[in-house]
Amino acid sequence: MKKQILVDMDGVLADFYTQFLKKESEQSGTLIELSTLSGKPESEAFPNFNSIIRSEGFFRTAPLIEGSVEGLNYLNDKYKVLIVSSATEFPNSLKEKLDWLAEFFPFISWKQVVLCGNKDCVRGDIMIDDHPKNLDFFEGDKIIFSQPHNIFIKNDDYIRVNNWNQITDIL
Amino acid sequence: MKKQILVDMDGVLADFYTQFLKKESEQSGTLIELSTLSGKPESEAFPNFNSIIRSEGFFRTAPLIEGSVEGLNYLNDKYKVLIVSSATEFPNSLKEKLDWLAEFFPFISWKQVVLCGNKDCVRGDIMIDDHPKNLDFFEGDKIIFSQPHNIFIKNDDYIRVNNWNQITDIL
Repeated sequence: MKKQILVDMDGVLADFYTQFLKKESEQSGTLIELSTLSGKPESEAFPNFNSIIRSEGFFRTAPLIEGSVEGLNYLNDKYKVLIVSSATEFPNSLKEKLDWLAEFFPFISWKQVVLCGNKDCVRGDIMIDDHPKNLDFFEGDKIIFSQPHNIFIKNDDYIRVNNWNQITDIL
Repeated sequence: MKKQILVDMDGVLADFYTQFLKKESEQSGTLIELSTLSGKPESEAFPNFNSIIRSEGFFRTAPLIEGSVEGLNYLNDKYKVLIVSSATEFPNSLKEKLDWLAEFFPFISWKQVVLCGNKDCVRGDIMIDDHPKNLDFFEGDKIIFSQPHNIFIKNDDYIRVNNWNQITDIL
């Protein structure tokens, strides 16, 4: 039987930081250097976090993380993939996330998507996520996808990957 | 530690049949008698199932099942409640479902909501659902909420309840 692998969206499939830097610049004219954000929580990294994340189109127009389409396609053949995204805090994001997945990952069915508040109720064998708050409640193998907010976190429970090539190398 | 209880929306909190009978009558003029639907799958019970379920407002304006607000409030004090709804097949339903919950069940937080394709990945101790396809993949106690489509199903694995009073009596 195929192992079940839970794959996060924001920060793993969708390039959350690039989208935030672009929207922050459009909304407030502030140009933020990505290199200054290491170790900062996302909600502190962007001055207009709360309004930008709720703005129409934010999730629908997010750019892809490099290699995510090919990487997820590979995983989808080998594992039982579930896309698990924290989304119910932002009701407008729900349809945008599904439409975005349908556009860029047409091989992922609606049956493979879980939009939730907390991820601790979702069962699986492997989780790929950029947030320790999700990984820490997971009982299987924990793969942390490097993003500026998590870059200084050291935890022997996690396997750290910096890109999709590293994911397909180990899985 | 509180037990985790998974509560379905359509057919347990929302009166799916009453809403369908109303919409079928509005859309096609067909008056269907509820008593003629026993044992029929929902998709066969209503001639315009596919268009009605996708129509704007269908989930947002669904009536409540009697006793569901008081009953869920009771469960929410005693258990860790998660609302788990099959929803990703119908992208327009997602926000409607959250808005509907926020209106009628304001004591339920967005953190307690799971909108998914299949429910077999969601962990819990007790599940209340009207669909065997969901209950059969659940590892905990299975409570089937009577609805016309499931009324003839006999399965010793299920505890059958006909209304919310029976739920609060046994839980």
